[in-house]
Parts: sequence; C-alpha cells; structure tokens
Amino acid sequence: MPKPQMPPAHPFDTSHLRDLGHDDKLHEECGIFGVVGVADAASFVALGLHALQHRGQEAGGIVTHDPEQGFNSARRFGYVRDNFTSKSVMETLPGPLAIGHVRYSTAGSKGQTAIRDVQPFFGEFAMGGAAIAHNGNITNANALRRELIERGSIFQSSSDSECIIHLMARSLQRTIPERMEDALRRVEGAFSVVAMTRTKLIGVRDPMGVRPLVLGQIGDGWVLSSETCALDIIGAEFIREIKPGEMVVITDKGVESHFPFRPRPSKFCIFEHVYFSRPDSILGGRSVYETREGIGRELAKESPVEADLVCPVPDSGTPAAIGFSLESGIPYAMGIIRNQYMGRTFIEPTEQIRNMGVRLKLNVNRALIRGKRVVLVDDSVVRGTTSRKIKEMILDAGAREVHFRIASPPTAWPCFYGVDTPEREKLLAATMSEDEMTRHLAVDSLKFISLDGLYRAVGEASGRDAGCPQYCDACFSGEYPVTPADMVEKGFQVKSAAE
Amino acid sequence: MPKPQMPPAHPFDTSHLRDLGHDDKLHEECGIFGVVGVADAASFVALGLHALQHRGQEAGGIVTHDPEQGFNSARRFGYVRDNFTSKSVMETLPGPLAIGHVRYSTAGSKGQTAIRDVQPFFGEFAMGGAAIAHNGNITNANALRRELIERGSIFQSSSDSECIIHLMARSLQRTIPERMEDALRRVEGAFSVVAMTRTKLIGVRDPMGVRPLVLGQIGDGWVLSSETCALDIIGAEFIREIKPGEMVVITDKGVESHFPFRPRPSKFCIFEHVYFSRPDSILGGRSVYETREGIGRELAKESPVEADLVCPVPDSGTPAAIGFSLESGIPYAMGIIRNQYMGRTFIEPTEQIRNMGVRLKLNVNRALIRGKRVVLVDDSVVRGTTSRKIKEMILDAGAREVHFRIASPPTAWPCFYGVDTPEREKLLAATMSEDEMTRHLAVDSLKFISLDGLYRAVGEASGRDAGCPQYCDACFSGEYPVTPADMVEKGFQVKSAAE
Amino acid sequence: MPKPQMPPAHPFDTSHLRDLGHDDKLHEECGIFGVVGVADAASFVALGLHALQHRGQEAGGIVTHDPEQGFNSARRFGYVRDNFTSKSVMETLPGPLAIGHVRYSTAGSKGQTAIRDVQPFFGEFAMGGAAIAHNGNITNANALRRELIERGSIFQSSSDSECIIHLMARSLQRTIPERMEDALRRVEGAFSVVAMTRTKLIGVRDPMGVRPLVLGQIGDGWVLSSETCALDIIGAEFIREIKPGEMVVITDKGVESHFPFRPRPSKFCIFEHVYFSRPDSILGGRSVYETREGIGRELAKESPVEADLVCPVPDSGTPAAIGFSLESGIPYAMGIIRNQYMGRTFIEPTEQIRNMGVRLKLNVNRALIRGKRVVLVDDSVVRGTTSRKIKEMILDAGAREVHFRIASPPTAWPCFYGVDTPEREKLLAATMSEDEMTRHLAVDSLKFISLDGLYRAVGEASGRDAGCPQYCDACFSGEYPVTPADMVEKGFQVKSAAE
Amino acid sequence: MPKPQMPPAHPFDTSHLRDLGHDDKLHEECGIFGVVGVADAASFVALGLHALQHRGQEAGGIVTHDPEQGFNSARRFGYVRDNFTSKSVMETLPGPLAIGHVRYSTAGSKGQTAIRDVQPFFGEFAMGGAAIAHNGNITNANALRRELIERGSIFQSSSDSECIIHLMARSLQRTIPERMEDALRRVEGAFSVVAMTRTKLIGVRDPMGVRPLVLGQIGDGWVLSSETCALDIIGAEFIREIKPGEMVVITDKGVESHFPFRPRPSKFCIFEHVYFSRPDSILGGRSVYETREGIGRELAKESPVEADLVCPVPDSGTPAAIGFSLESGIPYAMGIIRNQYMGRTFIEPTEQIRNMGVRLKLNVNRALIRGKRVVLVDDSVVRGTTSRKIKEMILDAGAREVHFRIASPPTAWPCFYGVDTPEREKLLAATMSEDEMTRHLAVDSLKFISLDGLYRAVGEASGRDAGCPQYCDACFSGEYPVTPADMVEKGFQVKSAAE
Repeated sequence: MPKPQMPPAHPFDTSHLRDLGHDDKLHEECGIFGVVGVADAASFVALGLHALQHRGQEAGGIVTHDPEQGFNSARRFGYVRDNFTSKSVMETLPGPLAIGHVRYSTAGSKGQTAIRDVQPFFGEFAMGGAAIAHNGNITNANALRRELIERGSIFQSSSDSECIIHLMARSLQRTIPERMEDALRRVEGAFSVVAMTRTKLIGVRDPMGVRPLVLGQIGDGWVLSSETCALDIIGAEFIREIKPGEMVVITDKGVESHFPFRPRPSKFCIFEHVYFSRPDSILGGRSVYETREGIGRELAKESPVEADLVCPVPDSGTPAAIGFSLESGIPYAMGIIRNQYMGRTFIEPTEQIRNMGVRLKLNVNRALIRGKRVVLVDDSVVRGTTSRKIKEMILDAGAREVHFRIASPPTAWPCFYGVDTPEREKLLAATMSEDEMTRHLAVDSLKFISLDGLYRAVGEASGRDAGCPQYCDACFSGEYPVTPADMVEKGFQVKSAAE
Repeated sequence: MPKPQMPPAHPFDTSHLRDLGHDDKLHEECGIFGVVGVADAASFVALGLHALQHRGQEAGGIVTHDPEQGFNSARRFGYVRDNFTSKSVMETLPGPLAIGHVRYSTAGSKGQTAIRDVQPFFGEFAMGGAAIAHNGNITNANALRRELIERGSIFQSSSDSECIIHLMARSLQRTIPERMEDALRRVEGAFSVVAMTRTKLIGVRDPMGVRPLVLGQIGDGWVLSSETCALDIIGAEFIREIKPGEMVVITDKGVESHFPFRPRPSKFCIFEHVYFSRPDSILGGRSVYETREGIGRELAKESPVEADLVCPVPDSGTPAAIGFSLESGIPYAMGIIRNQYMGRTFIEPTEQIRNMGVRLKLNVNRALIRGKRVVLVDDSVVRGTTSRKIKEMILDAGAREVHFRIASPPTAWPCFYGVDTPEREKLLAATMSEDEMTRHLAVDSLKFISLDGLYRAVGEASGRDAGCPQYCDACFSGEYPVTPADMVEKGFQVKSAAE
Repeated sequence: MPKPQMPPAHPFDTSHLRDLGHDDKLHEECGIFGVVGVADAASFVALGLHALQHRGQEAGGIVTHDPEQGFNSARRFGYVRDNFTSKSVMETLPGPLAIGHVRYSTAGSKGQTAIRDVQPFFGEFAMGGAAIAHNGNITNANALRRELIERGSIFQSSSDSECIIHLMARSLQRTIPERMEDALRRVEGAFSVVAMTRTKLIGVRDPMGVRPLVLGQIGDGWVLSSETCALDIIGAEFIREIKPGEMVVITDKGVESHFPFRPRPSKFCIFEHVYFSRPDSILGGRSVYETREGIGRELAKESPVEADLVCPVPDSGTPAAIGFSLESGIPYAMGIIRNQYMGRTFIEPTEQIRNMGVRLKLNVNRALIRGKRVVLVDDSVVRGTTSRKIKEMILDAGAREVHFRIASPPTAWPCFYGVDTPEREKLLAATMSEDEMTRHLAVDSLKFISLDGLYRAVGEASGRDAGCPQYCDACFSGEYPVTPADMVEKGFQVKSAAE
Repeated sequence: MPKPQMPPAHPFDTSHLRDLGHDDKLHEECGIFGVVGVADAASFVALGLHALQHRGQEAGGIVTHDPEQGFNSARRFGYVRDNFTSKSVMETLPGPLAIGHVRYSTAGSKGQTAIRDVQPFFGEFAMGGAAIAHNGNITNANALRRELIERGSIFQSSSDSECIIHLMARSLQRTIPERMEDALRRVEGAFSVVAMTRTKLIGVRDPMGVRPLVLGQIGDGWVLSSETCALDIIGAEFIREIKPGEMVVITDKGVESHFPFRPRPSKFCIFEHVYFSRPDSILGGRSVYETREGIGRELAKESPVEADLVCPVPDSGTPAAIGFSLESGIPYAMGIIRNQYMGRTFIEPTEQIRNMGVRLKLNVNRALIRGKRVVLVDDSVVRGTTSRKIKEMILDAGAREVHFRIASPPTAWPCFYGVDTPEREKLLAATMSEDEMTRHLAVDSLKFISLDGLYRAVGEASGRDAGCPQYCDACFSGEYPVTPADMVEKGFQVKSAAE
C-alpha cells in the first residue's frame, strides 16, 4: 500500500514566517457558524466568525446559497476582519443561507495549509449541492480515506473532514440530511458540524458532545455557532445548546431535531472551560468567566500561599487570577503587561529579533514587582518553555518570591479530538512530577489545581466520577473516550480507553 | 435532474478588470508540456510553458515528482515569467519529472476561474498518484460528469478535464497507463494530454489528432510539448509529432508507443496553421511562418487588387501580409503600429479610458497612410468589431482606399474542440455573406481566402477532399468530425456531423 | 497670500478604509527611539518602536548610519512587527547608529498621510547629513513655514516637523548640534526630538518638558526613548529622564548635556499618566500602572457608590478599576470582553458591518452582569459616543444600575501639543456640565476625578498649584502653557495662556 | 566638502529582480505630457503617457489642478496601464489641467529609484504652487546642487531635475513663468520641460532643442507631448513642434510664445530618428517609420550583399529591414520571432533560467533559416552582447551566411543628455574598429550606415555639415554640443566640445 501522496500546494509560501513569542498553549482548531432566514446571511456569518476568531486564526471560509445565484463561496488566509468585511467580497456571497468556518494555523509546526484545505467543503451530489464545516477531529480518518480511495474517490485536500463529503457522495440514502447521518455513523471521534443544502441549515454534534455547538434565533432566522459570544455580536438570542448526538435540520418551517446515533455518555471537552472558549460565552448556564474565576478560587483553597501580589499571565490567566485574589485576599495586580501590537508571526526575522522571544510580547511591570512575593496564575503548562521565561523576567525585575498557580491539572496527554497538542514527549507533565517541574522551572512553588477541584469548579459538586467521568479530560487523565484509531495504528500507546 | 451547482470561488476577485482593445480573435485554450530524465525538470517546464504562453495567458501550473520528496505542485494566475522563475517557487518543485499547463483566460466572457480549475490535475489512486494536463475539449463532459456524480464522485473544479481523473479513479484496470487508456476510451472530443506517474511521462493524442503534441529529446531526457517552439527554448531536439490516437509512455528505458483507440481519419485543426501556433513552430515539416506567408501568396492570387501598400493588422496578420506583398509586388509597410505595453486587462477603467478601445493598442502611421490605397491583411474576422474600428482609423488617417484581405475563410461556426469562440449568432460570417460583410464594414473590398486555397497553402496540392476533409475545418465548414454531444443536448444545431 | 497648496499624494489610497469600533480616545501622536554604539542598531530601534507602538500605529521609519555605507532609511505604513523585522529590510539598514519614529494614524479624520510625511526626516547640509524624529507639535509651524517658503525653501511634506530641518539648513551656525539649537530656539510648542548625524545621537526636550524622553544604557551603547518600556524590551538599563530644556549629545566619548533654552517652569503632560504611556513604563520613579491604580483609589474616595461589581472599560480603564475595587471593597470583574482580533480599520465595510460599531470590539459578559449594580471605570470621556454605547450594552445585558467613574477630569479643551483631539465643539465636556452629561448618557451616576484628586494621585500631595500648575493640564483646565499661535491665527479662543 | 549623503530609500526592494534577455540598447530616459482646457485632464495624460511608455517603463506620475480641489498628484512604479486607469486612482486626480511623466528603469544597473524620485516634482512658492516634469539631463546638476545646499536648500530626491524647483524657489522674479526662465538660464544640458501652475500649462525646450516636444490641440484644449503618437491616442491634432529655445505659456486665452535663452544652433538628437521615437510619430514632417525605412534603403546602397533573406532583429530593426529589402530586392522575412510575453525583469531567477538569456525573448525560425544566406538588420550595436548571441542562434539553426547591417553608425561615445548609456569602455565601438567588431562577432560581414548616409536618410540631402552638424550626434562622433560639466569634473575626457 503506497503512502498518501497528495502534493502539497504552495499558493502562499509561508516558510519565511516565524512564530515568535507565541504562547505555549493548546489550541482549539476550529470555529463554525451558520445562519438561515435572514437577508445578507454572509455578513452575519462574517461577524460570527470574527467573534470566534480565537478558535482559529489561519484562514476562514464562507459558503452561501441564493435562490437565484446558487451557491457561492470564498476562502481566504488571514483574519476575518481583513477578508470578509469589504463590499467587493461580500457582494459575491449573496443569499439568506450561509455557513462559515475559521481554522487554526498549524503553519510552522505541521507544514503548510493549502487554500483547498480551507473549509467549508462543498460537494455536488445527484440531488443537489451541500457544504459542510467541521470542528473536531475524525480519529479513523486515515482508514476511511484509504477505503474511499480504493473505491475511486479523489481527495482534493489533506483534511480529515473531506471524508465526510465523500461518504455522503457514496451513501445509498436519498436526501442530503439522510446521507449526512449515514456518513457520520461511519465517522469516529469528535465533531460538531454545520452544513447547508439549498434550503436547509443543519447542525450535528457527535454522540459524546465533545465539541460545543449552540442554537440561537435572530428575528425569523436561526443561527448555529460554536459559542454564544458569536450570537451576541449579531444580536441573536441564545436558545439552547445542541445536545450530544443531536442533529438539527432548520428550514423556513422551523427546527427539526433527530438523534441518529447510538447513545453514548456525554463527554464535553473540559478544556473549553479552562481555556478554549471565550470568557463571555455561556457554557452550562454560566459564563465561562465565572467558571474560571471559580477555578481560581478553588486553586486558592487547594494551594494557598503567603504573598504580596496575585498577577495573571496575560491574558488567559486573568479570570483565575482574579478568583485567586478574591479567595485569598491577596491584592490583584497587573505585574506583566502584554504588548497588544504583537502578531503571531514574523517575516524572516533577523537573529536579534528571533532571540527576543517572549519579550516581544510580554514585559514585567518592574517598578511594581520589585521586592514583592508574587503569585503568578496561568491557565495551563504545556511545554513549560514560556513559564520558564516568565519566571526569569519576574526574578530579573527583582521579585522576592515567585509562586506559580495553574488553573488546570498537569497536561500529560495529547488531544486527538480537534486540538493542536505537541507530541506526548514534549508535554512537560508527561515526563515530570509536580516536584520535578517545580525544580525544573526553579520557582518557589508550583501547584496545579486537582482534577477533582476542576470538576467542582465547573459545577460538579462531588467532583469527578472516576467510573464514568462527566467530561472528556483525556489531556489530563489519559482516559480517551474514543480510541484514536489512526494514532494507535501509528503506534501511539493509549493508557486506557474508556470505550 | 438539478443543474450543476458548483459554487464559483473567488480567490481573486477579477470583476473590476475589463478587457479593452483586446483582439477580436479565436483563442486556443491551453498549452501543455512535460519532461522526464533531466535534473530540475520544473525549470524546463517553466521555460517550455513560457514559450507556449500564447496558448493560454490566464494561469499556469506545474506538478513535479522527486523520488525523495514525492509529488509537488504549484498553480498560479498570471504569466509564467512572473510565477515560475523565482527560486523560492522553483525550489518547491524538485525532481527529474514534471508536467505543466497554461490556460487561456475566459474571464469576463464566461465568468471567473478559480485556482482549483488550474491544471495539471492530481489524483491519488490506490496504486499511487498521477497528474494530468489536458489541451482540448471533452464534448461529452456533461454527460460523464452526471454519471460520475451519480456514482459518488466529488468534483472540485468546473473543468471538463477533471472527468478524466475520476474515470481513472474508478477504472478496473491495474496500472495507471491502463487506467488512462480506459478513461480516455470513454471520452469524446479533442484532446492532447500529458500525464505523469511517479516514474513515467505519458503523452496521448485523440484518435483524430485534433490538437497538436510533439516529442523532443534533450540529452538523456524526453520532452512532450504542444509545439516545437517550446523545444527550441530549452535546446531540445524535435524528434517527431505524436500520431493521432497514439499513447507514448516514457520511462528511463525509453519511449513505448501504443494505439489504444479505434482508428479514425486524421483531423488536425487547420486553424493551428492560420493563427494558434507560433510562427516559429514546425507543423507538417514546414515552419508555420512559411505556411502563413503561403496563405498570403494564395490570397493575392485569388483576390488581387490595385494598391500602394500592403499592411498587416499587427501582429497576427504579418506573415500573410508579407506573402501577399511578395506575390503581388505591392510594397509591404507597417501602416498600423501596436503599442507593446498594452496588457489584456484594465482595473475598473474610467469611462474615458473604456471608450478608447482599440486605440489603446493600435495606432495608424498617419504620415505614411495619407492618400494611399491600402491592402490590410488580417488572419481572420470573428465578430468584426475590431475590423470595423481599424477601417475607421485608417480612413480617418486619410487613406484613399481600404481593401481587407483575410487569411482564412469566413468563420461561421463555433469550435467545440478546445477553442474559445463566441456563440454562433455573434460570428459575423454566420449571419452575413461576403458582400454583406463588405457593406457592413464599409470597405472598398473584402475578400477571404477560399477553403480550397487554404488547403493548398497548408500543403494539400489538390485542395480540400470534400468527402473526407484532411483537416478539422468545422469553424469554416460547419462539418464537425465529432458530434458535440453536450452542445447538442443544450440545443445546438449541427449542420452535419462527419461521423 | 495664497493658502498652502501642497498636493496630497496618494501612494496608498486609503479612502476605502473605515475606522469602526475605534475607541473614543485622545491619542498620542508619536513615539521616538534612538540608539548609538551597538552593532546592528536598527534591530534595537525596531524593537524599541515595537514597544512604543501604542504611541503611533499608522507608520514608522528608521534611519541608520554606517561608516562605510553612509545613511540609509526605510519608511513604511503599518505596524513595526510587519515592516521592520525581516532580514531583507533590516539588511538595508546597517550601522551602529540609528533613530526611529512611529506615527499615529489620522487617516479618516484628517485626510491621508503620504509616505513623505513619515519621519525621521533627513536633510543634507553643507557639513553633512542629519536625520531627526519629533514627538510633539510646533505651535507656530504655519508662520515658520510661510517665512521659509518666502525665503525659497521647498517643503516636501505637510508635517510641522519639517520646519526644523529647513531652519537647520538656513542656520548660520557651523555644526549640526549648534544648528539644531538655533532652529529649536525659533520653534514654539511641545517637542521631544531624537536626531543623528554621522557620529552623534542627539536628544532634546522642549523647555517645559511637555513630552517625555528618557536615557538608557546598553553595554557600551546609549539609548533615547519616549518611554522606559522600550528600554526593557532590548534589555537596556534606565538611567534617567532627559530634563525639560535639556539637549544631550551622545558620541563614543559619552553623554554631553546642554541647556540651550531660556528656562521655563516644567509642564509635563499629565495625560501621559492617565492614558498615553504604557502601564509598565516608569514616570517620576513610579510605574504608570501604580499611578493609575492610585487614581482609581482616589476616585473611589471622592465618589463612592454602592454596587456589586467594578468593571473596567477594557483595556485602558483596567488599572483604575483595580484601584477602585481595592479601595471600595467592591469585587473587581471583567464585565466587558474585548475582541483581541479587532484591527483598527476595515476595507470598505458593508452597511451591516458598519452598523456594528463598538460591538465588533467589545462584548458584555451577559451571564455575569445580569441583575447586578455595576461600576464602570474608564480613563476618560472624549466625545462620549463610546460611553453611550457601552452603557446600552450593559443595560441590554440586564444590569440593574450603571455607574460611570472616570479616571480623569472632564476633557473640555483640545490639545495642541502633539495629541490628536477633536475640535472643541465635539468634546462632550466642552458643552455640558457633569449633570448634563449624566443625563445625556442616561446612567445612574457619572463622576470624574477632580483635578486636585488627579494631582494627588500623580504624587502632588497638596494637589494642584493653581498659580503655577505642576503639569500641563490644558485639556482639562484650558490653561495653555504656550499660546497655540497657529490656532489663534485661525480663530481659536484661548481661555487664558499661562505664559 | 563631504560627498552627497542622501540616504537611498527602499520603498520597493528590487534587489531580487533581474534583467534577463533584455535588449542591448540605448534607452531614452523620459516621456512628458501635459494638457489644459479639457474636462478630466488626468485621463488624457494617462492615455498620453501610455502612448509614450516606450520612453520610460519604470514609473510614472501625474499632477493635476482643480479650481476647487487644488493640486493633486499620484506617483507609482510600473506601467501606466496598471497604475493610471482605475477609477479609484483617477478620481483622486480631478481638474482641467494636468501634466505627467514616465521614467526609464535603471534598476539593476544604477541602483534603486525611490518613489520620491518619480516626477513630476512639485514646489510651493510664495505666489503659489507649480509642478514640473523634465525629459533630458542637466549637465551641471552636481555643481548646482552643491551651491543650493550651501544656501540652505533641502533636496528630497537624487534627481538632477529637482535643481530646477529649488532654483525657482530662490529666484527674485515675481511670476512662476519668469522664475522658470530664471531657473532654466542657470541650467546646462538638454531639457524639454512641461510645467503647470494653477492656471497655466508651460512647455520649454532647451536652446539647442536636443529632446523633442510637440504642441497639439483637442477641442478648446491644448496638449504638450514628447511625441505625436501620444496626440493620436487622444484624438488631438498635431499643430507644430516647440522650437529650440522656445517657452510656450498656455492659458485659456491661448498660446503665448517666448524665447528666453541666448540663441544656439539647433542640435536635435539624431538617435530619436534611429531608435527612441515610435515609428508612428512624426518628426520633421515625416513618419519616423519612413525615415527608418529610408535608413534601410541607404544602408542597402552603401553596403549591398548577396543573400536569400533580409530579417530584422525584432522589433526595432523592422522598418530598416523592410527598407533594405525594398532597395535590394532580397525578400523580407521574419527569421527571428520575439516572445511577446517576455517582461523586462525576473524575480530572483534560478540559475537555469538566468542562463537562458536572450532565448527567453527571441527564437529563430529554424525551418525558414536553414541553409539560407541571411542579412540581419538591427538598429544599433551597443555592447554587442545580444548581437553575438543572435548570430549564434542563427548559425545554430543552420544558416549558411550571416551578414549584419546596422541602421546607425558605430555607437562609440556615451550620451549625457538624457539617455541611459553604458560607460564608454563598455561600448563595443569605443574599443574596436568595424573589422575588429566583424571578427569579434564572427559574422560573414558587419556594416554600419555611415554618418553621412544617416544624415541623408533623415532628410539632409547633402549629408552632415562637419563644421556645424545639423543634429546632436555625440554618441557617434564624440562631438558634444554642451560640455558635460559634471562628468568632466569626475574625469571624463571629452574628445571635443563644439561649444
């Protein structure tokens, strides 16, 4: 069996770009948004994607349908605000029905993305066209791809999501929603999908509901979005979350709900609470901000410390730092200032600029920090590279003590459900205990919130149900709710699959 | 049956571009080139495509294969010289085997091309990848496309050529050359194809040999090209034309020749002699320039005229004008000067500039023309719009008489074999006799070469064989050697198919 | 006397760009930075300008001198990170001596900037070349310009700063530093200048020291910068502030200090403390962050209120909100979330997107705010447009009460010393009392810090010295320390000049 | 005295561009055009500059004046058709009065041009603004520049033409036309100038009339242009040539003529007839095409040869080749075909592409040339590099004999009057006799037209007046009508100045 040979295209040669001072974080790989029943749907989608930009900054795409002008699409590299706001582009996207997608940049780490990898994907079937946009990851994509190629399908992208379109094309079912059900039943992994035909807006969450998807209403129109913050920007009302395993088919007659999959225990991604979702989004009835503040409070209870100041590592550590301060009574202060003009990438930087690293992005408030005992609150430690540099900057500014408090448990396992994680060996917590990490980072103390503490903070009063955890927490526990088949085939050792 | 719904993508919004002063010509839609057995094959392909740029100016693409780096590709809008000469691009195209394609711009007339329509196309099959580039037109593409979609193929482009890849993907045969034979047997119309696998360069001409394809040799390497002028630029030796219905499979062991199709009478496109091919290319053992000079001589014999000057309509009328001058003894002169800085398109031109039309491109040599009787030699009359404006410019400059001599018969029928022609109603000769055209253009005389005269000039001493014409001359005669099935389905009335 | 006729150039047509959701703030117009005595000085300047980007985002420029390659320069529109980090640009800027400038965008409000308006300016004098970069505003620039044109100077920009170069060119003095003294003695207004000759780095502050300028040291090299945060990014040590009226001339022999101007009472811009400077910069020995926190505390003392939450208007209200919370005991929370992917401008936005305004940038944390009494802390109220929209968003999210607390006194007068302010009529506080503003904004309460309170917070324990204020506070008090001559000529009514 | 230190700006880094296959020619450095008294004057100027593009391809600029909107300008790198045709640009250039300039690219040979070097130049004087555009070269520019800097002028460009604006700024005269006279009296060298104030269009030719300038009329408006071909494109009527030493001042009252300079013998550039001007322009009452055909006839008389074909080196050798054929009776043929898609520059080409050189641009019509004795007619031999390569291509294609006939005398001296020439050492004819050149190029024969023959062909029946040549022919004779002062100061040895 020859290995896949898809030639990388180079529509934009980005090899001269370098990520510098980029945060050492896990990253959500996609945001999705769809709307039906409004005039100029594409403008709403553009605004929604702008509000979801934190879920993917590399590229975005919109597909629309207009009764007279049929399907239209645009796919671009770069920010929504730069690509999908001008009249000249938006006029090419007419109609009352549209879906869109933003995508995380993996440039530099995993090679280059071609414009043909940018979603939504479109397929023309015998009964008409359909477009789909996908947030998540198909864990048996390689096997599906091989099978489809054997049968004569031609893949045009390197995206796992393209499998869905080919499965739909070959389905024996007669309508597009039925074909989508048929296709998604063959798919393993985590997925939230928005799709559209000429007349329908469709939303689906995988049976475990790993990735988010919410339903909103605006006038007579309906909206699907990864997060509620994108409903706010267009003034839509938040109706409810799409349920795990639910498919909604929205037409001008309203919202139909189906549950086409075998029921599974719910496993929503707990990291959405910790970091991925925007603090002004609502998850489980509470603002993500409040949950994070609660994590900070929980952390202060679990791992108190004598100190003069609580400072967040900006910006993601801020709500937990506020919570830690409120609980502990230690004053909250902005000890580290983020340069808001820092972009993600630099064009072939000079040696000198490359060496600056995190200093391009963060600066210590030296006059404030000098002589103080400082609690630094961050959301997570991934590779630990940034944590180490921040500690050095803080000490260099004259802090007396540095105590790290981390608003998540040790990240010891990679995610295979739509999050960009380093290989396991590069995760600091995969190779070191908390004590070893404390010595490695050379800080006065380093404490992570416990897994139970995190569950309490997200609203599970009695903590984690070890028998059947209420969330997907594989990145902390190594317990993967779905076996990552493609990765296992490549040799990845799963600790234990909950399946 | 819903009509095809492929959404046009808009990677480059070209709606603000306008064709001004563009020549009123038929246009070849593609040039193809491939090379195997040389270091840095992509550079040779780039040079070859640069020499074939007259066959397609809108976009170009190159696919290469390298034993270590596998398949690579680049596809760009614009000229070869701007896209495929820089180190940064060419370094992404390593290896000793490459094929390429240039494509004619139909922007403005037929809508926009997306980058995914730019060839070569690539397909990953169970036994490995292959890329193909196609010059010609598949006359049953719509029917094939419907059939393939019914079976679950997903089309990514609006190109008829994509059918070939999908047919190959579904073929029951075991090797790529066999699958290509299998696929091409389902295809009707005119095609010259270059294709490549990881180890083979493949060339095919359709059974009638409508479009050109030649074989060349450079050192130990082999070359396939639409025309011989592209062999010259890389210093390759012209070996022979690929025969109608022939498939050549070239490996490091040499050139294998097959004839997989049912034999058909040869029908090479006679317009290649008149206009499409470059004058320095060799067709049938003679330079195209000499053939065109011969057409001019023939025209002078058929339709002599008393005059002071013979002037070409630049640049395509030049060789025939020289021939007319040599035969008639009337001095040859450059009565019309072409502005060599004229591009094809303007960005949203102002009203004033739009009104300039052909004056942006051509200027009459007023001092030379004044008071003279002028013979204007042009290669063809399509819509007649430019001819009319040129006549006005010539008279406005003070010419005493204007006589048009046209180096082809009246173009009265559209081409369906890979040439961009207006709809039949827009062809001047479809609606007017020679006398009516003379009055319409308001010139002192207008004469076209006869069909027999043209055949004599291209080397058929006894003229056209009415029973079985030696060339495809459907654009003049309306006798289509292959029924254009898709067009007939849409309601096109074929005068008579020779099939 | 004809009015000035300099034709606006349009190297970049920006008429299709629109400011949307842009904050209703005063804006510092420039940041300056210079370094001497280090290898590759331009990279240091680039980093310094990146840290000063908040002082000007429209454009930046760098001039360098190298003993072998002489003077070189680059000027670009856009962010430092995009323009001055690539090798290809930085290699054109060699040498151990460099100065740079970032400039605030006035596009949209005041017309377009041409690249020739981008500093540093360069002049070639009989004794050699010099470059200068200027932060501030010359209040007699129009008069100087007229005078210089009468004498035959040709202005190339519309910048007031170009006067300095022309005055230097015409000076009778023999060295460049002497000519600069000579020139600056003719100049009225506020200015901090960094300049360079082939061997010298020069820094000057106007006699009142309105705009900041600090001295730093890095290895054997010296640095001049608008703020200390730009010393931090390159790892330079903060030595001291340049004194009002001081000129420093730095060569490889060290720093020479002069006081070429008639002494004046010091009038540092108090708004640097309130908003312009970065919170991690040090002014008067304290971090700007601490001063702002102090303003918030002072405000809580002056204008207490019963409430559930203290929320900043992000990001500039944050330190004062923290101070308000610490003083009042009301919990601090992020009730408004800023979209960090919001740029300043949109390319010809559609109507729908234009109408979004501030929602593109800010979103209320609805779940958090609902039913709460909220104190909103902002740094200033300029036109009041954004304040009004924010209030609406907060109420729309279900807040029970909204109390505005403003960390500066009412901004009732325009600045003529290098800050972009609206015309007086557009300043809300110029036309309304505090009560009227409260009704206009329709909030439950609105309180500004008092002028005395502000002076206390910046360290003047006994408040403002009404006889001779310790700072320039003209934007609040209307007491202009230098008569803005050009504006008075145009009809501006000064309340009272302190001169 | 330090040497000039103007820092090169790098708004467009062009160091990665390479001239390949570029013709080995002398190049005119500028084209100028102006119009007054028509609506939307800028569109006319754009069209005129498009027709003059052969006189300068690097950059272009337009300045306009509108009674309400004052002066406006745009300056761009690249072709007129790409920069000055879109509505968005042209709308920024309103008004009934406009001038423009195109400039030859010296990129690669002489370093980079900054946008500030692109004309027209604008100056604001006490009595109002003025813009000027200049074709030619000021031979005492260095001395003038030094003098002006000593007096306090600040130069912004490296262009010699900027001296004129500074001289005007310092003139004691009261009106702009008087100041222009005053300034131009200090200027030595060759110049044709178009200039404009708010109400006047001004044209000037230097006292010897070295560079061309013509007057045309369109409706009630007036036009100034380098050549008549640019009158044709806008439909203007050619009135007359501006006389050597004449200044015309055109207002709505008509054309006033002055002769402000000391009279000098006329010395029009004879190379305008040979190569620079477009063949459809009229010089001295005859089309340039006819003159060049006449040169070919003269050359056939002076240096006949037995041969089978006369072929031009395209495109500049074409008219002379036609003349040679008509006179000699040897058939004219296109033996060399030019690739019309060849641009001037390549972006960092690969080694392989760089090596292609002239083959990228020219191809021999192999089938036509084989076994023939060929006369190749070219307009000039400068370095001889291209001639040598063409000869090799012709022989390689199987020609039996190659005879070069050159339509100008040997180019043995550089031009200092506005033409881009190599240094004297690089001119083939400066170091070799005709026989040596014949051997060097290894051709069967090489003949240049005689100086007398050239004079006869341009209409001087009795040939060249050795005592006082009727034309400037310094590039052939070394007799410079004006001593090139700046070059002499740098050490250039003038053979003999005719002054």
